[in-house]
Amino acid sequence: MSSRFPEIFRRYQATRALSRTLAAPLSDADATVQSMPDASPAKWHLAHTSWFFEAMVLQRFSKDYAPFDPAFGYLFNSYYEALGARHPRPRRGLLTRPTLDSIYAYRDHVDRAVEAFFQRAFCEAAGELIELGCHHESQHQELLLTDILHLFAQNPLRPAYKERASDEAGEATPVRFLAFAGGLAELGAGVENFAYDCERPRHRVFVSPYRLADRLVTNAEWIAFIDAGGYGNPLLWLSEGWAKRLAEGWTAPLYWERREGAWWTMTLSGLRRVDPAAPVAHVSYFEADAFARWCGKRLPTEAEWELAAEPLPMRGNFLETGRSRPAAAEGEGLRQMFGDLWEWTSSPFSPYPRFRPAEGEASEYNAKFMCGQFVLRGGSCVSPKAHIRATYRNFFPPDARWQFSGVRLAEDS
Amino acid sequence: MSSRFPEIFRRYQATRALSRTLAAPLSDADATVQSMPDASPAKWHLAHTSWFFEAMVLQRFSKDYAPFDPAFGYLFNSYYEALGARHPRPRRGLLTRPTLDSIYAYRDHVDRAVEAFFQRAFCEAAGELIELGCHHESQHQELLLTDILHLFAQNPLRPAYKERASDEAGEATPVRFLAFAGGLAELGAGVENFAYDCERPRHRVFVSPYRLADRLVTNAEWIAFIDAGGYGNPLLWLSEGWAKRLAEGWTAPLYWERREGAWWTMTLSGLRRVDPAAPVAHVSYFEADAFARWCGKRLPTEAEWELAAEPLPMRGNFLETGRSRPAAAEGEGLRQMFGDLWEWTSSPFSPYPRFRPAEGEASEYNAKFMCGQFVLRGGSCVSPKAHIRATYRNFFPPDARWQFSGVRLAEDS
Amino acid sequence: MSSRFPEIFRRYQATRALSRTLAAPLSDADATVQSMPDASPAKWHLAHTSWFFEAMVLQRFSKDYAPFDPAFGYLFNSYYEALGARHPRPRRGLLTRPTLDSIYAYRDHVDRAVEAFFQRAFCEAAGELIELGCHHESQHQELLLTDILHLFAQNPLRPAYKERASDEAGEATPVRFLAFAGGLAELGAGVENFAYDCERPRHRVFVSPYRLADRLVTNAEWIAFIDAGGYGNPLLWLSEGWAKRLAEGWTAPLYWERREGAWWTMTLSGLRRVDPAAPVAHVSYFEADAFARWCGKRLPTEAEWELAAEPLPMRGNFLETGRSRPAAAEGEGLRQMFGDLWEWTSSPFSPYPRFRPAEGEASEYNAKFMCGQFVLRGGSCVSPKAHIRATYRNFFPPDARWQFSGVRLAEDS
Amino acid sequence: MSSRFPEIFRRYQATRALSRTLAAPLSDADATVQSMPDASPAKWHLAHTSWFFEAMVLQRFSKDYAPFDPAFGYLFNSYYEALGARHPRPRRGLLTRPTLDSIYAYRDHVDRAVEAFFQRAFCEAAGELIELGCHHESQHQELLLTDILHLFAQNPLRPAYKERASDEAGEATPVRFLAFAGGLAELGAGVENFAYDCERPRHRVFVSPYRLADRLVTNAEWIAFIDAGGYGNPLLWLSEGWAKRLAEGWTAPLYWERREGAWWTMTLSGLRRVDPAAPVAHVSYFEADAFARWCGKRLPTEAEWELAAEPLPMRGNFLETGRSRPAAAEGEGLRQMFGDLWEWTSSPFSPYPRFRPAEGEASEYNAKFMCGQFVLRGGSCVSPKAHIRATYRNFFPPDARWQFSGVRLAEDS
Repeated sequence: MSSRFPEIFRRYQATRALSRTLAAPLSDADATVQSMPDASPAKWHLAHTSWFFEAMVLQRFSKDYAPFDPAFGYLFNSYYEALGARHPRPRRGLLTRPTLDSIYAYRDHVDRAVEAFFQRAFCEAAGELIELGCHHESQHQELLLTDILHLFAQNPLRPAYKERASDEAGEATPVRFLAFAGGLAELGAGVENFAYDCERPRHRVFVSPYRLADRLVTNAEWIAFIDAGGYGNPLLWLSEGWAKRLAEGWTAPLYWERREGAWWTMTLSGLRRVDPAAPVAHVSYFEADAFARWCGKRLPTEAEWELAAEPLPMRGNFLETGRSRPAAAEGEGLRQMFGDLWEWTSSPFSPYPRFRPAEGEASEYNAKFMCGQFVLRGGSCVSPKAHIRATYRNFFPPDARWQFSGVRLAEDS
Repeated sequence: MSSRFPEIFRRYQATRALSRTLAAPLSDADATVQSMPDASPAKWHLAHTSWFFEAMVLQRFSKDYAPFDPAFGYLFNSYYEALGARHPRPRRGLLTRPTLDSIYAYRDHVDRAVEAFFQRAFCEAAGELIELGCHHESQHQELLLTDILHLFAQNPLRPAYKERASDEAGEATPVRFLAFAGGLAELGAGVENFAYDCERPRHRVFVSPYRLADRLVTNAEWIAFIDAGGYGNPLLWLSEGWAKRLAEGWTAPLYWERREGAWWTMTLSGLRRVDPAAPVAHVSYFEADAFARWCGKRLPTEAEWELAAEPLPMRGNFLETGRSRPAAAEGEGLRQMFGDLWEWTSSPFSPYPRFRPAEGEASEYNAKFMCGQFVLRGGSCVSPKAHIRATYRNFFPPDARWQFSGVRLAEDS
Repeated sequence: MSSRFPEIFRRYQATRALSRTLAAPLSDADATVQSMPDASPAKWHLAHTSWFFEAMVLQRFSKDYAPFDPAFGYLFNSYYEALGARHPRPRRGLLTRPTLDSIYAYRDHVDRAVEAFFQRAFCEAAGELIELGCHHESQHQELLLTDILHLFAQNPLRPAYKERASDEAGEATPVRFLAFAGGLAELGAGVENFAYDCERPRHRVFVSPYRLADRLVTNAEWIAFIDAGGYGNPLLWLSEGWAKRLAEGWTAPLYWERREGAWWTMTLSGLRRVDPAAPVAHVSYFEADAFARWCGKRLPTEAEWELAAEPLPMRGNFLETGRSRPAAAEGEGLRQMFGDLWEWTSSPFSPYPRFRPAEGEASEYNAKFMCGQFVLRGGSCVSPKAHIRATYRNFFPPDARWQFSGVRLAEDS
Repeated sequence: MSSRFPEIFRRYQATRALSRTLAAPLSDADATVQSMPDASPAKWHLAHTSWFFEAMVLQRFSKDYAPFDPAFGYLFNSYYEALGARHPRPRRGLLTRPTLDSIYAYRDHVDRAVEAFFQRAFCEAAGELIELGCHHESQHQELLLTDILHLFAQNPLRPAYKERASDEAGEATPVRFLAFAGGLAELGAGVENFAYDCERPRHRVFVSPYRLADRLVTNAEWIAFIDAGGYGNPLLWLSEGWAKRLAEGWTAPLYWERREGAWWTMTLSGLRRVDPAAPVAHVSYFEADAFARWCGKRLPTEAEWELAAEPLPMRGNFLETGRSRPAAAEGEGLRQMFGDLWEWTSSPFSPYPRFRPAEGEASEYNAKFMCGQFVLRGGSCVSPKAHIRATYRNFFPPDARWQFSGVRLAEDS
């Protein structure tokens, strides 16, 4: 039996319990509706993460496992071509049945089977896949909240996922740029700890000297950009970004709305006044890039970001703080690198030198998305803390705005 | 106080109660999701029909009426421009809040207010609008079931709205064509009974002699059309219909699917074998027209249909039979004119000579849709019986298939 | 040999010559480009009308006819399913080859063959198809000019098809409404003269008493509608029309543009000031209907129009006047019924009672378009005079604006 | 006066003359039509390249320059936001006027002015922009041919731009992989010779050891991929590529068609049999990447390509050979690096470290496209030889196929 058995077992139980806690405030209807093709219903997240254990672990390693419902493979496979046909993504929100209660029963069924499997038949290979499944579920926990925010933002009633007392608006410290020497560095994940395939292998990269902002761009700074006509000046924008801006009519970050002369924004606690000191959230790569150009700065590369982040302690405003909104930077030094908001980098999501996809069905996890996306780093206020590490590469298309994404500036030194 | 007070009061109570009965089998999620822009969520139907009484009656005639929620006017106005801005139709399915329970509370609130209004302040003008509201709600009861069938048909699990024992498959009698003399006829609704504005005024129309099929086209006959390549021969189709057929890939009526060599169809009782003797349902005008051409026949005009229907008793397979599927014709003579399925006519939905829209906000009820639609007659197996009359003009675009629509043939004599 | 031989022969020669005259001002490029899927290149019109004679007459009746190029059947068939596959309509503008010169050579080839056929083998059946082909070509002559205007209007240089001295702006007479008794009337084309199948058979229709405007709606009247907010008031519009208005951003007739406080419009003679006294042109059915509602009037039915037009002499501002723009009404009585502009009627394009499509391939000429279109009557300033008659039924979808279409009002009397 | 004056002057004259030679086989219509929004009409290329000199040089440096036509700035600006409004790209093909002859007159006008300017007022800054304009025109010469091929391929007649005798089909040599050591290399253009801004600055990059195929992938190899089901196996494709493949129905390279059991392909000399030994052309990045995965190889990075190309002589099958189709590799060693076909690399088009866009309006030339595109290297059989260099970075979106693009494989060593 693997020496990592107890750790994985604890992680499994904690992860599975957390999903249920996160879904608790949702009605059956809340958990069923899909607000756009890019988003998925909460019910679907709850089921898909269970299907992942069923398809990747139980059906492969547990000989006598009886699937909860043979139709669920079709309904809850996300994009694994090797695992058969699946319900089309834009139609996930039409599944009023199975009900939320059935999905909970499905989760219980899978949990019982995995826990029995732990007791009876645990092996190294299964353990690795269970660990992958836990990270996978952590990722979907963030997506569940991200997608619920999008859903509730479509509702003219602007409902709250969770009521919270009004936040004390902090005061943002002036931004400072910290110098880094660069050089021939080693980046990427080593073999000792868990990492997704796309974080590997550890490899050498040459980095010129650079400087990084010591905190994220704030809402106050973003309002200055808006007021200076930043959304109206094509010379600041990438060509494709400008076309998108025109087509979508962007004039402010996603979820911002103007009411009686003030900016408000939709949050998981309903509609709130925009806090000037807090970091700007829900901006696309296109907006982040235009903002940086307006400042005479640029976005960091992922190598620059990772070099700076590597020595830092893993601390920040993650899901566990319960805040679920980014907070103003406090203290000194390089802040907000972890948590608060995913930080857009200027690096397209490409394979590292000598990259090899994971073996088996998990090979589709990341590799087939290495096109048309940009890397984001550092996790957010809705990322479970254990899910994040300095080498973690998140990725989204440059027009995506519904993620908890923000901006850190960089410059050549 | 109007002499029709008791009749309208009874109708109000019965209509309102029926909506709730029809919604009883639905979960919060079932009642929330919108399966396509043309369909509406059940919850929306339940709320909109209540809003209709609120906006058309209570807010106009009942001075001290306090609206249940001021936001509901925006959320549940369908298309009345004169009554202010409204939530966009394709986004009705994003309203996970208000919950189904809140909508029931809304209905109770309106019911109490309307019933109090009946006692205290009833007047002729309000009575007419309440009567209109009841017919309006009857219409939405049919739509609710029609839309639920569409929603459940999108679900790979093919859930049943209501389980029913398997039907005895009848035997279809051979079709016969009955002759009608035509001539200078009077058609349309008179002033004595309730009718929508578009059914009026009664007017003269010259009709040539014609013959009508004594029953609807059956599934067996439709299968013969399929087997003869009817879906593959452009010479049978209207140009726009053929383009639609190609674009949508139609090869059979909506909801039909082929499983192991047999035709099945989705119904409110789940997936069922296609009954050869039953009338073919869920076909578009384009298909009905192509089928008629293939037979060397044609569709009737609405004048031809109404002339034939006028003397008939109001009997048929309506919602009240509980069958919710069309049944094979039995007996003799001109059958299935009322109930079973709406019958496509070749008449575009146009104003009758000297037509005047209803006064006030109700003027938008029908008149603004007099373009691009065809008239259907006779009601269906999900129409409340009291909603249907010989002069009733239903209308849908020629590509609509999700209604309970069927085909009766005609020819010149 | 048919007694109508000389008449048809003269008509053939005149028709063919006119096409060439109309195309003379066009360059190879002008004649090649397609400005939208609904329009066709001039070169295509010139070739298609020749193909019509080739496919309908020569290949059927002239045994030893050698086609000019076997590929042309594919390239220049418009929509005749019975005559084989064809080049997709939206791609007609990609055919830079064959060149305009090749198309002229094709026309010569067909003309020589038809003329030889006339001498050697003329028969009644062929004669009828040649006559049909001449009417067909007349129809395409109007389309050629209509499509060229659309093409040139897309060009920021606003080029002129044909320069003309500036018109004297007339003065519009006040509109008057003339009364008609209606009754049980006979309408449609008899058998003695040429008519398209859809104009037949002559049949009885009951018409209530009505009144018709004695002239078309003028630009000045239309400007009053614009200034009164007619384009901004949804209560004036059909529902589908309002959706189209919003989607397309209509605020004035097609081709109108505002320059320095005045309205200008694109014409076949380039950009011109809008003449207040001239009839408003290039409006859709939706606009015509909204305008009529704003006036408290309505559009006439096609029966009302035809009853009034039947006794009138066939005179008007047709293509032959060389004006190619509608002119202000002059004189007295019922004016502008023929020529100037096609007049929208409120009648959907439907089959007359006992309608039978033409025999053979010509059966596709009209019948398959009897859905979703409205009838226009009377011809326009770009219609060849011989092409128009009182029973002529033109038809277009309610959102079409690039035709020379205008508005005559009607009301109940 | 600049010492480079004579060189630039010669280049200007040669470049301008070549454009006219390339356009000579085109009719006015050929030069006017736009076959898709990504392509431009030949006439537009001829005018735009002249406008470039007018806007960038003459209007800035030549005080008394009188523009040929003030409307041309609007018509022929491509995408320079700083130079004012412009005609929308997808509508370039609607400009039947100005005629091709007018465009030639425009070119003459600009040429006379530039040549006079050379004599009278030449300065270093203007010289740099004229040199840029020459490279710009070379680039459009390739695009002109590329776009004409696309246009002619849409024509069912498959016309030839230029007839050529049938090629001798060579025999392809077996592919060999040549090893490169990599290491900390210097890449990018230095300051001494002309280069676009995106090729600079020269910078260090760490490259792992790798191997490169000694020739391009052949048609025979591609047919093996097709026959092995490569277009039907989603596991070989990027997710976005697979979606594109399904949406577009790709089953072979662009322009390939199957006739009587053999593959044919459209070329500038019309439809030709696919030559098994010649390199496969007109494949997208998605296809190139899937093919490489199927082989167990990968595409090279642009650094790998440039390191290998740097020492090679600038020789290859460029526009000047007159072949205008890729040729089978001959001889030994690393072949086809320059000319024949642009080679897809796995590198997204991103800024080099410390990249600065060109000054002035030329700043929009490349920088704003650094998103969503992949780099291609080496030039093609329709690239003017003088336009290509080892540091040249061409870029296109991953689904582009109408360029002369091919595939060279790489692998880790």
